[in-house]
Amino acid sequence: MKFAFQGERGAFSHDAARRFFAHELELLPCRTFEEVFEAASEGRVDAAVIPIENTLAGSVHRNYELLAEHELTILAETSVRINHHLIGRPGSSLSATRRVYSHPVALAQCLGFFRQHPELEAVAALDTAGSVRMVMEGERDDEAAIAGRSAAEVYGGSILVESIEDHPENFTRFLLLVPSGRAADFGGGFVGTPKTAVLFRLPNVPGSLFRALAVFALRDISLSKIESRPIPGRPWEYSFYADFLGSASDPGVERALAHLAEFAESSRVLGSYVSIA
Amino acid sequence: MKFAFQGERGAFSHDAARRFFAHELELLPCRTFEEVFEAASEGRVDAAVIPIENTLAGSVHRNYELLAEHELTILAETSVRINHHLIGRPGSSLSATRRVYSHPVALAQCLGFFRQHPELEAVAALDTAGSVRMVMEGERDDEAAIAGRSAAEVYGGSILVESIEDHPENFTRFLLLVPSGRAADFGGGFVGTPKTAVLFRLPNVPGSLFRALAVFALRDISLSKIESRPIPGRPWEYSFYADFLGSASDPGVERALAHLAEFAESSRVLGSYVSIA
Repeated sequence: MKFAFQGERGAFSHDAARRFFAHELELLPCRTFEEVFEAASEGRVDAAVIPIENTLAGSVHRNYELLAEHELTILAETSVRINHHLIGRPGSSLSATRRVYSHPVALAQCLGFFRQHPELEAVAALDTAGSVRMVMEGERDDEAAIAGRSAAEVYGGSILVESIEDHPENFTRFLLLVPSGRAADFGGGFVGTPKTAVLFRLPNVPGSLFRALAVFALRDISLSKIESRPIPGRPWEYSFYADFLGSASDPGVERALAHLAEFAESSRVLGSYVSIA
Repeated sequence: MKFAFQGERGAFSHDAARRFFAHELELLPCRTFEEVFEAASEGRVDAAVIPIENTLAGSVHRNYELLAEHELTILAETSVRINHHLIGRPGSSLSATRRVYSHPVALAQCLGFFRQHPELEAVAALDTAGSVRMVMEGERDDEAAIAGRSAAEVYGGSILVESIEDHPENFTRFLLLVPSGRAADFGGGFVGTPKTAVLFRLPNVPGSLFRALAVFALRDISLSKIESRPIPGRPWEYSFYADFLGSASDPGVERALAHLAEFAESSRVLGSYVSIA
């Protein structure tokens, strides 16, 4: 078993993957989300783990687009508490630090810390764990990174300041994806109340979103999330991505999806999946 | 008259501002969107111009949050065609170029160009026009930037390759904001069919979004956009931002907003505004 994820060993996606699988799997760290989706679509890995939404930063929009472009099935979700730490080389300290590397979203979630420490320069990097690796490989005690505890452990970094994020209610929701043809192999592995994700595109006429939501509301199917995304090449038109409670195989949900297909330009179920604590 | 915008002279926001005002105004270039909103809220400028949505990248989420946090009124919108050019120092060329600076969104919109030119390294920078300025101030003919034509003009750069964006249907919608107390001063200046923006938060119960959309659909009020944003500190709950056709002073719209206020936890009109071509 092998899975793909964006970032490097010790990334938050790696933490999420540990929730999905009891045993440590073979890893395929990827530079971009595109590479993650391609690896899974081409069958070079058995599964992929991607972040889809953060409680402070919002949705990871690129991954919504990639879900639309690839034939993968969502099998499970998990929510990971995001704790950002200032991580430096062993022996270094906050007072010696001048430059701090991390992913732009992580930097943006620590604005209060940077305001308290105007002597620190925030430098955008490709990912959190990779920033820690880079600092550890460097020779400079005035450089540090912002990342989670796993990254410090993997690369032997020291936590110089703990939990520097602005807001403690910082969670990221991750999805486990498998090639659509292989969903059945994993089907028995997870139990829980299912949710279903559906992607749909509506005709550009007044009231169309209202009618789309009606197919769920009229059947007491509860939406947990709705997201609109621009349609490339059709300015100011949108496709929608919705998560609701229930499995696509429930008779009521089946009828709701058939009802939606009646007037949506297109609709596609991305998977019925369970939540892993 | 003075207005604030994010970026530097020659930025796309600067192009948008020229649409709103016939005469060149005094500029307050800001490093961040936060600074733009603060300058307008504190009355240090008469107006602010912000990007809110791009047809490829989607919404500028930070600006939705900042609209919620500040008491500014939306007075007008305009849609600017985004053309990305490779801009270098006069005398340099594509074949000499090795490093290309720009804002991450601009880099992401030129992925096809970077695939065709694997010899080029894309480097993330704070903004498009500022990348051009930096390259022009540097001494290196192997460095270039991606930005719009105005940035090349302002800083004396040469367009090395024109229109390198992946998708020609690339537009950004910009908003003109004024301090809420001063909206009346500008009121007569713009004419056209108005749209209204409203921000609301719903109780976390099944069907609440369906009911919110019903207040508009039942009155044939057409939604042009709906956007959900996470509520900080309340994981997996959302506030909504909607644009619809009509002015907040239309009797039907007034009734719809009163109906919305009945069961929304909170709702606030961010402005009725016109589109400037």
